[in-house]
Amino acid sequence: MPLTPEQQAEIEEQRAHPQPTLRAVAPGMEKHLYTAHQVLDHGLVRVIDYMGDDNAITQAARVSYGRGTKSVSNDEGLIRYLMRHWHSTPFEMCEVKFHVKLPVFVARQWIRHRTANVNEYSARYSILDREFYIPAPEQLAAQSTVNNQGRGAVLEGAEAARVLDLLREDAMRSYDNYEQMLSQDGQQGLARELARMNLPANIYTQWYWKVDLHNLFHFLRLRADAHAQFEIRAFAEVMCAITRDWVPYAYAAFEDYRLGGTQLSGKGVAILKRRLAGETVTAENSGLSKGEWREFAAIWGEN
Amino acid sequence: MPLTPEQQAEIEEQRAHPQPTLRAVAPGMEKHLYTAHQVLDHGLVRVIDYMGDDNAITQAARVSYGRGTKSVSNDEGLIRYLMRHWHSTPFEMCEVKFHVKLPVFVARQWIRHRTANVNEYSARYSILDREFYIPAPEQLAAQSTVNNQGRGAVLEGAEAARVLDLLREDAMRSYDNYEQMLSQDGQQGLARELARMNLPANIYTQWYWKVDLHNLFHFLRLRADAHAQFEIRAFAEVMCAITRDWVPYAYAAFEDYRLGGTQLSGKGVAILKRRLAGETVTAENSGLSKGEWREFAAIWGEN
Amino acid sequence: MPLTPEQQAEIEEQRAHPQPTLRAVAPGMEKHLYTAHQVLDHGLVRVIDYMGDDNAITQAARVSYGRGTKSVSNDEGLIRYLMRHWHSTPFEMCEVKFHVKLPVFVARQWIRHRTANVNEYSARYSILDREFYIPAPEQLAAQSTVNNQGRGAVLEGAEAARVLDLLREDAMRSYDNYEQMLSQDGQQGLARELARMNLPANIYTQWYWKVDLHNLFHFLRLRADAHAQFEIRAFAEVMCAITRDWVPYAYAAFEDYRLGGTQLSGKGVAILKRRLAGETVTAENSGLSKGEWREFAAIWGEN
Amino acid sequence: MPLTPEQQAEIEEQRAHPQPTLRAVAPGMEKHLYTAHQVLDHGLVRVIDYMGDDNAITQAARVSYGRGTKSVSNDEGLIRYLMRHWHSTPFEMCEVKFHVKLPVFVARQWIRHRTANVNEYSARYSILDREFYIPAPEQLAAQSTVNNQGRGAVLEGAEAARVLDLLREDAMRSYDNYEQMLSQDGQQGLARELARMNLPANIYTQWYWKVDLHNLFHFLRLRADAHAQFEIRAFAEVMCAITRDWVPYAYAAFEDYRLGGTQLSGKGVAILKRRLAGETVTAENSGLSKGEWREFAAIWGEN
Repeated sequence: MPLTPEQQAEIEEQRAHPQPTLRAVAPGMEKHLYTAHQVLDHGLVRVIDYMGDDNAITQAARVSYGRGTKSVSNDEGLIRYLMRHWHSTPFEMCEVKFHVKLPVFVARQWIRHRTANVNEYSARYSILDREFYIPAPEQLAAQSTVNNQGRGAVLEGAEAARVLDLLREDAMRSYDNYEQMLSQDGQQGLARELARMNLPANIYTQWYWKVDLHNLFHFLRLRADAHAQFEIRAFAEVMCAITRDWVPYAYAAFEDYRLGGTQLSGKGVAILKRRLAGETVTAENSGLSKGEWREFAAIWGEN
Repeated sequence: MPLTPEQQAEIEEQRAHPQPTLRAVAPGMEKHLYTAHQVLDHGLVRVIDYMGDDNAITQAARVSYGRGTKSVSNDEGLIRYLMRHWHSTPFEMCEVKFHVKLPVFVARQWIRHRTANVNEYSARYSILDREFYIPAPEQLAAQSTVNNQGRGAVLEGAEAARVLDLLREDAMRSYDNYEQMLSQDGQQGLARELARMNLPANIYTQWYWKVDLHNLFHFLRLRADAHAQFEIRAFAEVMCAITRDWVPYAYAAFEDYRLGGTQLSGKGVAILKRRLAGETVTAENSGLSKGEWREFAAIWGEN
Repeated sequence: MPLTPEQQAEIEEQRAHPQPTLRAVAPGMEKHLYTAHQVLDHGLVRVIDYMGDDNAITQAARVSYGRGTKSVSNDEGLIRYLMRHWHSTPFEMCEVKFHVKLPVFVARQWIRHRTANVNEYSARYSILDREFYIPAPEQLAAQSTVNNQGRGAVLEGAEAARVLDLLREDAMRSYDNYEQMLSQDGQQGLARELARMNLPANIYTQWYWKVDLHNLFHFLRLRADAHAQFEIRAFAEVMCAITRDWVPYAYAAFEDYRLGGTQLSGKGVAILKRRLAGETVTAENSGLSKGEWREFAAIWGEN
Repeated sequence: MPLTPEQQAEIEEQRAHPQPTLRAVAPGMEKHLYTAHQVLDHGLVRVIDYMGDDNAITQAARVSYGRGTKSVSNDEGLIRYLMRHWHSTPFEMCEVKFHVKLPVFVARQWIRHRTANVNEYSARYSILDREFYIPAPEQLAAQSTVNNQGRGAVLEGAEAARVLDLLREDAMRSYDNYEQMLSQDGQQGLARELARMNLPANIYTQWYWKVDLHNLFHFLRLRADAHAQFEIRAFAEVMCAITRDWVPYAYAAFEDYRLGGTQLSGKGVAILKRRLAGETVTAENSGLSKGEWREFAAIWGEN
């Protein structure tokens, strides 16, 4: 769904008037400000404000470590060092505020990340719009047969059509009835805080979400992961691209050490050392459980 | 809705085997352990575990204030002193874990309290039960005409009947369709993480919720308040009663200083002083805005 | 102590190059950026960065309350409403980052406010400077005889001189010995992480401290209060003045509802109502404890 | 330093009276309750209270994952699965409260872990005891020549003796002067909140520290690590032993996946895969920086 002309006009107005500031400015982030990145069918992510840049991270680290940081001479190296050694506080010195429009079932996963600030549209005060997430056909997947919380093959033919019809019809009917219960035309009209209970979890809500860079990375590591539900991952991936433009060194370190890295258990280290020494380690002699071996072998191969 | 025989049996089993412990024991809380307090039509609150009692609060305060606390000779007086002066850390030394079954729209308000630990039933992994909150007739209220987020008069006659019918029918239909989409009978069956999006916000979910006493009081102050939505207040009131049994001194102090107290602005203090000095202060000469005067007068009268 | 020429030059350099930004700009805060406000004898507070302004608060509130906020037509009224009703999340949408130089015993109080981000100078990595807080003569006070944690009369004559001598001599001697233990001149030199244990709590440390406006107000309410220790209050008062320039509406509301207001217990409300009805309420018939009556009477008079 | 007879008597009294409870009881933890574990020269760790056991973790997980967790049939396997996949909330369902006596410079590191509840002895209210940490001779180490924040060789002979003399003399003198400033014998006596500033960072303080198991593990991973300063590691190691007795399955999983494991970057994974394929990877062709290679080679060898 395209933005309304009013929304588009508001964004253009906001983008038209740069003002001078003495604060740190991240050029890569300025270009994102207020611009709506569309996500899913009616969702969006917009950067409303930000604080700091790559340099704000090293500046804070140099307060902490004083002369000790002189030995790492450049910002990029220092940022990689901080990320590698889990020094989280310098990354907390950057902050970002997003405007996000998202389905309620995605919002319910998202809000579990507690170290952030949120102002959500309140359906006690106001009436929600008739906007529902309906999956694209290629996202309409069967329950995974191997993963209790995952998706398997894409649904096909009549079943897919039936599901889409059901989702659309139930959304429209529940919204019609929501409006009818609220209506004050010839009746009192049900309180908004009650009427909203009739709306399904694919209705869109929106919020302002503000978070520091350390906690944003934590969110992105979990939600841009291949095991995250597709619908929240769609948001996380847009936010990854924005973050790369905002703090390129920090994002590159995050990509190498977190997104692209892996955690080995003590047992896993021992197995790799045996293999490096020429030994053949199999599921049987690995000492790992079946599930653990499957995950290990997915990265390191069967032997 | 009554508990199932299985649930009832599990509770009785848990309650049948006291074990010795050296920890502080709160007799008033032991009697609540595992017992299901019913809330709304299908909801419940159960105490799963707790840490500490009134004495744990003063014990921690005496670590902090050392000899300085000797002057307040008894526990009750010290607890009132701590509450009055916003010394929050001693109250954080008590902890409680609840099992709560609640409608999703209540859960969405509740989760905004971030300083707690939560494990919620996951509809990605598992299938939700066919249980929906349908308001009792006396709770079916119109939108308030004075308060954007409140309820007004109770709906009557045909309108009330119509609303209840709509809520019930939409709940049943959406659940039927949820089941149909999930079904693997002659079809692949939609992934659970997708099918759940069809369920309305009055479906019941459940979680374990663990919180310290300071943050529990903060939650109760906001959610047992007359302005809180009835449905969350119903839970808060049950939890108030439990907390009173658990830490009677702390609860009494909370009741006096928080639930039963009020916050005055600098302007409000000045008005009361003028009145105590015999002056007649009205909306016009109060210096308060209209809304502020209305709230002030609700407690202190019109002049 | 004046800033060094190097520090002064760095500040001037930072202040000389405004850059264009599309973000919200708070003119009252721009003028504070990087400028060192001196506090106590060697301490300082500098604004390093900020996010948002008064408008960012109402913008977030309007996302939350949607059409419901239209009735409060102006920003100032809405901000007062939010503050009065403890709606904290819109205030969390503003963020500020300070550079603070402060004595260690003040830092130890300050750090108890957990909802902030901190990067402190590390004496494991680096060597602390020879800078100690020595109270001004008018701050050299005796232990209060009525308040376990307060100050009484100012010390005079020989006693005051003796205290200042002791503080200065012990500071200098401990620092001399710190340097001697660290020295690698003709010896190995003790590890910095060990040598620092010899330094007293009036040595200065420094940190970057980043916090949202809601939590800043909470900090300021407790630390700009007359009961706070003078040394931390000195910092809080400078930060109050800065915050007033940053978000004038929010600060004015904070001043009226928090700093200038008071909390009444249920018992306190009842007493005031009796007085307003013409009754004479004394300590004896108030139902309050002695301590509580003393605090009540300090605001409302003896009868 | 041994406990005083009064402290010993209080502990014995507390341990003498088990009471019945319906809550989960962890036998391995009951034996630790109240018992003082000595740490360093005058420090201690005591368990004051706890909530939950291994079973509380899986119980919470089963609420979350419902039928989905049935496939992992036993508690130990489920706990390992949760730890491996960074499912932190079930571990938050256990809580522990410690009484800790520790030097101030250790307390300053410790308090940086913000997700815990703390009540510290207040030197504004009360007078600190004459107890200082003086390192054992084998802990008196030189500054590391390779690590900005570490220790090198143990000091020897005259230098070691000189350091110990300085630490002891400065501690005693500063405490003498602290007492003299406080004294009301023939003078007013300086306020406690001021006099404390003369005390060095090796004086002992004490606090109650309460934390959930997830955050405790995070603390232990950082502070029981070989790179942590010895003095805080001494506390962490005692707490590791206590935690092993409290929640043996969870602790074993923590030991394998966190303490004994390692994090590989994307580059690190690629290097190991090249080696497994028979290639010789050296510092030069690794693509790692010098510092990163040194850390990598410390685990995986030079080629």
